[in-house]
Amino acid sequence: MTEIGIGILGGGYMGKAHAVAMASVGAVFNTKLRPRLEMVCASSIESAERYRQAYGYARATADWRALVEDSKVEALVIATPQVTHRPAAEAAFALGKPVFCEKPLGASIDDSRAMVAAAEASGCANMVGFNYIRTPASQFVRKLIADGEIGDITWFRGEHTEDFYADPAAPASWRTNGAANGTMGDLAPHMINAALALLGPIESLVAEIETVHTNRPGGKVTNDDQGQMMVRFTNGAMGQMHFSRIAMGRKMGYAYEVTGTKGAIRFDQEDQNALWLYRAEGKESELGFRKILTGPAHPDYLPFCQGPGHGTGYQDQIIIEARDFLHAIESGEPVWPTFRDGMEVNQVVAAAMASSRTKAWVNVTDF
Amino acid sequence: MTEIGIGILGGGYMGKAHAVAMASVGAVFNTKLRPRLEMVCASSIESAERYRQAYGYARATADWRALVEDSKVEALVIATPQVTHRPAAEAAFALGKPVFCEKPLGASIDDSRAMVAAAEASGCANMVGFNYIRTPASQFVRKLIADGEIGDITWFRGEHTEDFYADPAAPASWRTNGAANGTMGDLAPHMINAALALLGPIESLVAEIETVHTNRPGGKVTNDDQGQMMVRFTNGAMGQMHFSRIAMGRKMGYAYEVTGTKGAIRFDQEDQNALWLYRAEGKESELGFRKILTGPAHPDYLPFCQGPGHGTGYQDQIIIEARDFLHAIESGEPVWPTFRDGMEVNQVVAAAMASSRTKAWVNVTDF
Amino acid sequence: MTEIGIGILGGGYMGKAHAVAMASVGAVFNTKLRPRLEMVCASSIESAERYRQAYGYARATADWRALVEDSKVEALVIATPQVTHRPAAEAAFALGKPVFCEKPLGASIDDSRAMVAAAEASGCANMVGFNYIRTPASQFVRKLIADGEIGDITWFRGEHTEDFYADPAAPASWRTNGAANGTMGDLAPHMINAALALLGPIESLVAEIETVHTNRPGGKVTNDDQGQMMVRFTNGAMGQMHFSRIAMGRKMGYAYEVTGTKGAIRFDQEDQNALWLYRAEGKESELGFRKILTGPAHPDYLPFCQGPGHGTGYQDQIIIEARDFLHAIESGEPVWPTFRDGMEVNQVVAAAMASSRTKAWVNVTDF
Amino acid sequence: MTEIGIGILGGGYMGKAHAVAMASVGAVFNTKLRPRLEMVCASSIESAERYRQAYGYARATADWRALVEDSKVEALVIATPQVTHRPAAEAAFALGKPVFCEKPLGASIDDSRAMVAAAEASGCANMVGFNYIRTPASQFVRKLIADGEIGDITWFRGEHTEDFYADPAAPASWRTNGAANGTMGDLAPHMINAALALLGPIESLVAEIETVHTNRPGGKVTNDDQGQMMVRFTNGAMGQMHFSRIAMGRKMGYAYEVTGTKGAIRFDQEDQNALWLYRAEGKESELGFRKILTGPAHPDYLPFCQGPGHGTGYQDQIIIEARDFLHAIESGEPVWPTFRDGMEVNQVVAAAMASSRTKAWVNVTDF
Repeated sequence: MTEIGIGILGGGYMGKAHAVAMASVGAVFNTKLRPRLEMVCASSIESAERYRQAYGYARATADWRALVEDSKVEALVIATPQVTHRPAAEAAFALGKPVFCEKPLGASIDDSRAMVAAAEASGCANMVGFNYIRTPASQFVRKLIADGEIGDITWFRGEHTEDFYADPAAPASWRTNGAANGTMGDLAPHMINAALALLGPIESLVAEIETVHTNRPGGKVTNDDQGQMMVRFTNGAMGQMHFSRIAMGRKMGYAYEVTGTKGAIRFDQEDQNALWLYRAEGKESELGFRKILTGPAHPDYLPFCQGPGHGTGYQDQIIIEARDFLHAIESGEPVWPTFRDGMEVNQVVAAAMASSRTKAWVNVTDF
Repeated sequence: MTEIGIGILGGGYMGKAHAVAMASVGAVFNTKLRPRLEMVCASSIESAERYRQAYGYARATADWRALVEDSKVEALVIATPQVTHRPAAEAAFALGKPVFCEKPLGASIDDSRAMVAAAEASGCANMVGFNYIRTPASQFVRKLIADGEIGDITWFRGEHTEDFYADPAAPASWRTNGAANGTMGDLAPHMINAALALLGPIESLVAEIETVHTNRPGGKVTNDDQGQMMVRFTNGAMGQMHFSRIAMGRKMGYAYEVTGTKGAIRFDQEDQNALWLYRAEGKESELGFRKILTGPAHPDYLPFCQGPGHGTGYQDQIIIEARDFLHAIESGEPVWPTFRDGMEVNQVVAAAMASSRTKAWVNVTDF
Repeated sequence: MTEIGIGILGGGYMGKAHAVAMASVGAVFNTKLRPRLEMVCASSIESAERYRQAYGYARATADWRALVEDSKVEALVIATPQVTHRPAAEAAFALGKPVFCEKPLGASIDDSRAMVAAAEASGCANMVGFNYIRTPASQFVRKLIADGEIGDITWFRGEHTEDFYADPAAPASWRTNGAANGTMGDLAPHMINAALALLGPIESLVAEIETVHTNRPGGKVTNDDQGQMMVRFTNGAMGQMHFSRIAMGRKMGYAYEVTGTKGAIRFDQEDQNALWLYRAEGKESELGFRKILTGPAHPDYLPFCQGPGHGTGYQDQIIIEARDFLHAIESGEPVWPTFRDGMEVNQVVAAAMASSRTKAWVNVTDF
Repeated sequence: MTEIGIGILGGGYMGKAHAVAMASVGAVFNTKLRPRLEMVCASSIESAERYRQAYGYARATADWRALVEDSKVEALVIATPQVTHRPAAEAAFALGKPVFCEKPLGASIDDSRAMVAAAEASGCANMVGFNYIRTPASQFVRKLIADGEIGDITWFRGEHTEDFYADPAAPASWRTNGAANGTMGDLAPHMINAALALLGPIESLVAEIETVHTNRPGGKVTNDDQGQMMVRFTNGAMGQMHFSRIAMGRKMGYAYEVTGTKGAIRFDQEDQNALWLYRAEGKESELGFRKILTGPAHPDYLPFCQGPGHGTGYQDQIIIEARDFLHAIESGEPVWPTFRDGMEVNQVVAAAMASSRTKAWVNVTDF
């Protein structure tokens, strides 16, 4: 076991989740690299100091460059707003330091491309934080599809739907401004990442994106409430996606279904420890979707659990990410999803926005 | 109570269902008009005679005109292939006889328009057999939405998916030929009808329709295996639909979700006696989709049932249709869905096919 | 095809259900015997005449003996209160006429024994109306267990729970008086029948039966609101049952689970077209309960349905009963559940009531 | 924030879970007391040292007394076999040190009573590790019932069922020997604790406990595979419980249903982030169980989560326990479940075992 000093930009929601994950991951997964919470950076020294105490960092700063350049900070986690992603990542890569960056990768497709270039030029470990795809259930789905267990894929449907802005009377906030804070920046990347992970590249798409509630108490809404798209994957499958922050009743509607020539799979993060598998084999009288509870037989199941039924929660997803980031650092091998994977998600989002403007099908590779 | 002589064209699957329904409906719903199974018509006199005996008709014929023109046949049910719909309906309306016609209404949009014209000119009762929408659950959903119980609708998703052709090795048959026998002719009309019934007209759409398995043992496949579309309703809602006969694992995937500003609804015909309702009111800690089992408190629940939980089945849907057709005849008032409603479904199908060819958004009213 | 004249005692809830079933069963199942609704008997000639007209009987009477003895009444359906079951059945058997009797068989265990003796002495077809067990799902469960598909049974849990008297303010009625109208007479027989059908005889039991709401608006409650028992089956399995008319939230809680050494099964009538099967075979990563929708591959699935997903409803259960009763008459072979099966259910109920009084385990065969 | 030195007896399954929890709880809940992993004790110094390194303890020992008496160990977590619970707890209380003890509390009812006496005499914080009851869902259920939201309770059904010994060919192991390792020692305490927590004391019960598979490869089985009981709660409700390690198909069948005069609740740990609530109020047409996903509106929801749908997992339950233990230490107030609560669970288990031997109802307070 070797210690590694971790610096985290941000101490808010995701910053905290990563701090807890880095503090737990060694014990949970018995990793070779053992994180040490070396330094946290926040917008003011007061809040940084508060995070330091609360989460157990050695040091605090309000200067992100100081953190990145600190010799005891050996790897970086970026959990600050998107405009900060590119400069911080570039600075870290320039110093040969691995970077884990929250999604979406860049504030723009150009930022994302630059970040991929910097990451790949440096040869450093680089990962993007699409944490929902890391549940044992979704990792098992990936494997089932990759192994051809449900045959050739003919259909995909995915959604990332929540309802935190479903009430038209909910007031405007920072979330209702800024392209990256709308549904396409906030929720869509998770499900697009899932689609790409499960079926491979999207070739073309047609999309619609809209602001349903254009005025809210406290101001105009300048970003999108919901979007939909139809896609063609390179593998020939057709599919649909839907993203919404006004999906009344949905709390964590990260859900997908994949249909193949030999079976089908369904998943919904609202019941994150289960997946539904249909195999077109055996007696006709016994065909049906089976509800599989994740357990030790599945990839990424938390190793302290003896048997199936010991549920995985949200924080566990972040711990699994931390394990994989440590593994990427240690092995020198790229670990999915890399910055390149993150950039491909940005590309689909950009294509969708363009399609929505022109009301026409577009090729994703044009973006 | 007054007897009414019923003539049914077709003794196959739907012909039988309507015969059973006409024989039961009087007792079940205590209708004023009491059907008498007067005559059945089939493609040969032998099979017609067989149906007569099996289902209890007074007479049998292989000549549809003879049935339509028979003086004891006072109302017509058409359950023969689509090319037969128009001539039979026109002949009946010319004689002032009410017609119940299976979906889809016409073999072409022109046929459908002619049938609507004939029906409306005659002033006769006319209905189309979209039976799935007639479950107590779906009728309650219609009412909830119409009453504004879930607010303004922002989103619709519907599918009619089954898997009877999911196996690529399933042999070619009459079902794999003929435009009206593909998914867009066979399954899509049901869900399009539901969409129109629940949200009102569709203004525009973009669609993709495809034959996934172009060759099957026994021959080429010349109609569609699956389709998808994105739509805009006139009321402003956006939505998606999907239709498939290759949806591995789905047996009766007639399912929809409707999201509004005050709530949401979900339904799946695979559990046809339940609907899921979310209302954004009450304590936050108690919000959730509730599973409502249909019962006496819901429209169209079968009246012999004392309490909730006495399930409605497929045959019951046809009995409910029979009741409503009798009511239309007796009252002289149009009963939904009329031929005009059926024609509007054909229009959306035609628009979808055109959009799929041109890869562009189309206005439904152009078709 | 041969006609058979049916006489039905009772035109209320179950009387109507049987009338509709007898009118439909020939067409639905293409039976050799074709029922003719010959005569209905009700408590007054006025109501009998009303039933005659509503359900399509040839004749009506208020004299049950007249009906039983009428030469055109060739088979009897008893759907009147329990005290009437014995005399009517005995009279019919004395004339060599088959009898279908609603559950519970007799008003007392003595009545039931006498009815079994009369039935068996006559050699006539005799059946009891435990209709819930006749869904395709439950018939498939019976077969799976009988075929050893889930191994040796180790555990059974069953309930028949509804909530029509859950509200303490619901007024007293005929249902709150009379031993046979309480939960043990009304609901328990269905689930006890299921237990016996699925696992075989119950050897011993300990039970508790109680009236929770002893006073209701309009009067004292003199029968039971709920009961519970623990049982030992002759095959060695242990199990529990629960019966309640105050089970708030349950509408048709006819539900059971059966665990064996090779698998397990779950069923709930509130979703009557599905069963859940777990098989302990195959890859550990894919083990799970599968949700099987009933269809043509299952016993008793209604034959007019082409594919799975065409739901069976409550009325269909009664039609299936009618088919089996006709088959018993025609074949001369006993068809399950016979009067003897019905009497065994009475025996378990009697044992449970005795156990509840003495607070001790009892042997069922002592009753 | 004040540091507190934690000593943990045991580094196996639960020892690890508590180590991870103690390392995370400060950051997750921003506790005032901040645990320091001071010392771990295992059966050999080698394994203790291995745990030390893996989980980040300062020191390791194979001498439990050394750990308990160490001045830097300020609070004790006992996660070793049950025979060790009493001496370790007594030693700690004698030194005035708080103790958190895994369930079941003592190896015998006498041990449990002695432990309660020692705990209460010392005035130290004392808690028992019934972790499943600590999910946000179950904590919310407790509150709903306590607040009278579902009225007077009339019915309870609970089970703790798993299938890790369902296969008759699974070999004998330490789990198939020793009273405390059977189902009544291992699984039953969790659900009995839930029953007591939700409904209050059990007055009397009748039970059956059995070893279904008496021989397994590798040896005789000397403890119980499954058990069942019927109970009467002091509040008048009746109920049933079932416990099994041979419940084929069940992975974490910690499930209960509670019925009251105004509503009902259902929960199953296999979907641990949801509970089902039925309220008998509002329009009859909209009554139904609603599926509530736990979120910020519920007690004990993990505070780093912004919104509902961020699932709680097994490890989170242990973190919540750690928080409450720290709170008990800090506040000097007893925090549920105390040793006394744990002892009451032992009492019900002892009563059940006696009842099973005598085949008679017993009063729980006699044990």
